[in-house]
Amino acid sequence: MALTLEELVGRFGGEVVGDRARQVGSLAPLDQAGPQQLAFLANPKYLSQVETTQAGAVLISPADLAKLGSSEGRNFIVTPNPYAYFARVAQMFIDLATPKAPAGVHPSAVIDAAAKVAPSAVIGPHVVVEAGAVIGENVRLDANVVVGRGTQIGEGSHLYPNVAVYYGCKIGPRAIIHSGAVIGSDGFGFAPDFVGEGDVRTGSWVKIPQVGGVSIGPDVEIGANTTIDRGAMADTIIEECVKIDNLVQIGHNCKIGAYTVIAGCAGIAGSTTIGRHCMIGGAVGIAGHVTLADYVIVTAKSGVSKSLLKPGMYTSAFPAVDHADWNKSAALMRNLDKLRDRIKALEAAAAARDNT
Amino acid sequence: MALTLEELVGRFGGEVVGDRARQVGSLAPLDQAGPQQLAFLANPKYLSQVETTQAGAVLISPADLAKLGSSEGRNFIVTPNPYAYFARVAQMFIDLATPKAPAGVHPSAVIDAAAKVAPSAVIGPHVVVEAGAVIGENVRLDANVVVGRGTQIGEGSHLYPNVAVYYGCKIGPRAIIHSGAVIGSDGFGFAPDFVGEGDVRTGSWVKIPQVGGVSIGPDVEIGANTTIDRGAMADTIIEECVKIDNLVQIGHNCKIGAYTVIAGCAGIAGSTTIGRHCMIGGAVGIAGHVTLADYVIVTAKSGVSKSLLKPGMYTSAFPAVDHADWNKSAALMRNLDKLRDRIKALEAAAAARDNT
Amino acid sequence: MALTLEELVGRFGGEVVGDRARQVGSLAPLDQAGPQQLAFLANPKYLSQVETTQAGAVLISPADLAKLGSSEGRNFIVTPNPYAYFARVAQMFIDLATPKAPAGVHPSAVIDAAAKVAPSAVIGPHVVVEAGAVIGENVRLDANVVVGRGTQIGEGSHLYPNVAVYYGCKIGPRAIIHSGAVIGSDGFGFAPDFVGEGDVRTGSWVKIPQVGGVSIGPDVEIGANTTIDRGAMADTIIEECVKIDNLVQIGHNCKIGAYTVIAGCAGIAGSTTIGRHCMIGGAVGIAGHVTLADYVIVTAKSGVSKSLLKPGMYTSAFPAVDHADWNKSAALMRNLDKLRDRIKALEAAAAARDNT
Repeated sequence: MALTLEELVGRFGGEVVGDRARQVGSLAPLDQAGPQQLAFLANPKYLSQVETTQAGAVLISPADLAKLGSSEGRNFIVTPNPYAYFARVAQMFIDLATPKAPAGVHPSAVIDAAAKVAPSAVIGPHVVVEAGAVIGENVRLDANVVVGRGTQIGEGSHLYPNVAVYYGCKIGPRAIIHSGAVIGSDGFGFAPDFVGEGDVRTGSWVKIPQVGGVSIGPDVEIGANTTIDRGAMADTIIEECVKIDNLVQIGHNCKIGAYTVIAGCAGIAGSTTIGRHCMIGGAVGIAGHVTLADYVIVTAKSGVSKSLLKPGMYTSAFPAVDHADWNKSAALMRNLDKLRDRIKALEAAAAARDNT
Repeated sequence: MALTLEELVGRFGGEVVGDRARQVGSLAPLDQAGPQQLAFLANPKYLSQVETTQAGAVLISPADLAKLGSSEGRNFIVTPNPYAYFARVAQMFIDLATPKAPAGVHPSAVIDAAAKVAPSAVIGPHVVVEAGAVIGENVRLDANVVVGRGTQIGEGSHLYPNVAVYYGCKIGPRAIIHSGAVIGSDGFGFAPDFVGEGDVRTGSWVKIPQVGGVSIGPDVEIGANTTIDRGAMADTIIEECVKIDNLVQIGHNCKIGAYTVIAGCAGIAGSTTIGRHCMIGGAVGIAGHVTLADYVIVTAKSGVSKSLLKPGMYTSAFPAVDHADWNKSAALMRNLDKLRDRIKALEAAAAARDNT
Repeated sequence: MALTLEELVGRFGGEVVGDRARQVGSLAPLDQAGPQQLAFLANPKYLSQVETTQAGAVLISPADLAKLGSSEGRNFIVTPNPYAYFARVAQMFIDLATPKAPAGVHPSAVIDAAAKVAPSAVIGPHVVVEAGAVIGENVRLDANVVVGRGTQIGEGSHLYPNVAVYYGCKIGPRAIIHSGAVIGSDGFGFAPDFVGEGDVRTGSWVKIPQVGGVSIGPDVEIGANTTIDRGAMADTIIEECVKIDNLVQIGHNCKIGAYTVIAGCAGIAGSTTIGRHCMIGGAVGIAGHVTLADYVIVTAKSGVSKSLLKPGMYTSAFPAVDHADWNKSAALMRNLDKLRDRIKALEAAAAARDNT
């Protein structure tokens, strides 16, 4: 399977410089690509590799092309974003090479008579779809996926094996949800109902019913074993094109703004609103009931306990250093007030001296 | 479906002030409730909304009722804890509105002949129950739940889709376990069996068999994708009414005291004992082999490396601030010993000066 | 089921001191063991218990045996590593006591006609094995396990219920993978394709196809709900005898060196290389694209943002202390530059004074 450069720009845009009839059938790095392969230059520091590459053609930005001494005898697709272009072409070649599962419902799947499954959907073995659920066109539900009562899965979405979506949720078109993710589990809410203190305290935690849902916009990707809780009354909301990594926890009634990315192991407590185009680093923790503005970046391992209302980069994490050195600094840090008091004493002594 | 205030106090306690025959059929916030709805006042700062609400009745504490100018023409259920009362009533209305799955075993479930399943239990599609397991009355096992050999699930428990409980565990009555949770996986224990150092080290890690179980008391809730390891010899123990959020890790041979709550993404290493009525914040990490007293609170993102033997609140987390500001402070923090040495030098110089 | 000491040393090595015909049938701690039980001394501080134990025999090191006044009337197996020996013997007794599932494929499993399953494998209920997958001899796939297209599971491996392994992965012999673990999910990679800034930004994140696999060496154990992403182009690599705890995230194209152990809740971002014999503590976070040397230890809750190229122990975590005390220190820490400036001012004043 190969396409000409002309066919590629017909599908993905950009302009051909060189031989429009040149065919390429796969992608490779500049230093490894052969004459039937397409390479890309995303970082100008590899410009010299463009001079020597054996690639059949190179994806390049207009600025980088202009830096080249000569393009003679070489073929290019010129595009403002060669890396994104590469990603799109690579995806196409993969789709062409991947065997398509035939549409239809595997005989071992259990589909409630009151559910609607589009004819083009691919429903794998042991899938369970409950009453009132709606499975859109070209949806793919892999083995053991469970879709609860009344939940909607938008067209073109792909749920990998063992995903569970509880009842009453709505998942936008073209979602990708990786294995083990759980959407719509109960938010963590309990009313304390205790009498007395200490050893004589009696009573219990009373569960607050969680009857909101989860509403997920278009083009969202959700990583493996990530959990997104349903809202207490209103929905938990994930807007379009949010990308969430593995093992992330999103509490009830959070709202995650469009295009925000959240790296692995992050946790966001309930009722927090994160703006659009934010970047939440790995293992970041964000408290409940706070607001992050659009374009906020929180670096990995940091903790957010208050609202961050201005765009910008925020941090509260230390990098690991030699254990003994760290312990020395940490001990001083726990006694900073003593250092401060010693400075105060020196200042007072100096002032007394100056006054005499 | 509506109940009179008299019927509500018959079921849930409290006292009616106003029209005992007033009917309500659902719950709503004070500012949105209509004449057929029940609202609640949990926070005195919303007291003025009680004057203007359209709610058919309001749950209120005696103290807040006393603050009202007049209750004339209004209906109340007076209870010391309106929030918990609200939660209980809301749960009842939800239960009434939710279609009940019929008791019985789905034909696709695989139940070992040597397992016991109570007739009132609801066993969903593709559930697996192994030999010797005992499934109590009114238990609900959703799709794909796996219950290992000899494991007991107490009456009224609800295991959501894709929960796995290994062999030899005991789960108390009225448990709620959310999707993807794993109960009874092997604790993380290996004996080093290596000879030599550095490049010539040879040998391997030898697995320590984990033959204890997990013992979970009554009224426990466990969040989605949370993991609770089985003990090495004795059981890992979760006492009654413990509430655990999503993506929490509990190591082998931990004991979690009754009424303790653990927020999402927390991790507790093996053989640690946590007291009763503790509150463990989100993403808290607790070392192995330590003890936390009753009524200990650990704030979110903190790390506990030693026992905390007195009740109280403990912290070791910083809130994220502007990245550049943080880096400046962090660099100084790593060189605190130099600041300390400069203070020492100033003190020595001052002392020398004073002595001359 | 009992074995003589002679039979034990025949299987596991070591030397008998005492009655070679003595039979033992299980293991127990020194202070609880009876005449048919085997105990072990791993820590010399319990040496006195060896004098009084009722155990039929004791596993002991040559050094500890030499410390005993007399071994008369007692039986020992002498081995350099009694703890590892104990683990191996305990595992054997457990294996003997555990009912063996018969080889074969459960009728509810869905095995593609183009998959190969060894005759000795035990394939549980509702397992799914896709085309081209190869399941080795004595493999055990528990209920609901899903093995993707072309994936190989090496001989003797045990995948617990609800494990998902995506397509094109390779899992070495004797792996143990606990419930809910996900192997081979897509790495987290997106090319930004946006135009404009702030409110007028348009565009999207373009998914970078993840077509590498995951390659897992022999004798690896992977904890419950742990996730290991597939590589973007090349494989993510886990070398032999790596032990990974629960809820760990390993990003795409990581390489984890042999014998390294990773405790629960740790997260390792993409393209990071960890050496051999490392110990990564619980809830540690490691940035992407960094390298850790062999024999690096990172203590629990620490964050690694740069390469650690020398063996040793590294830390960046604080232990939780009283909340109010912490807040006092934390406020000073955020203003360390002010303390530093006060020291500077004192130094300048002292210098000025000395010069006059």
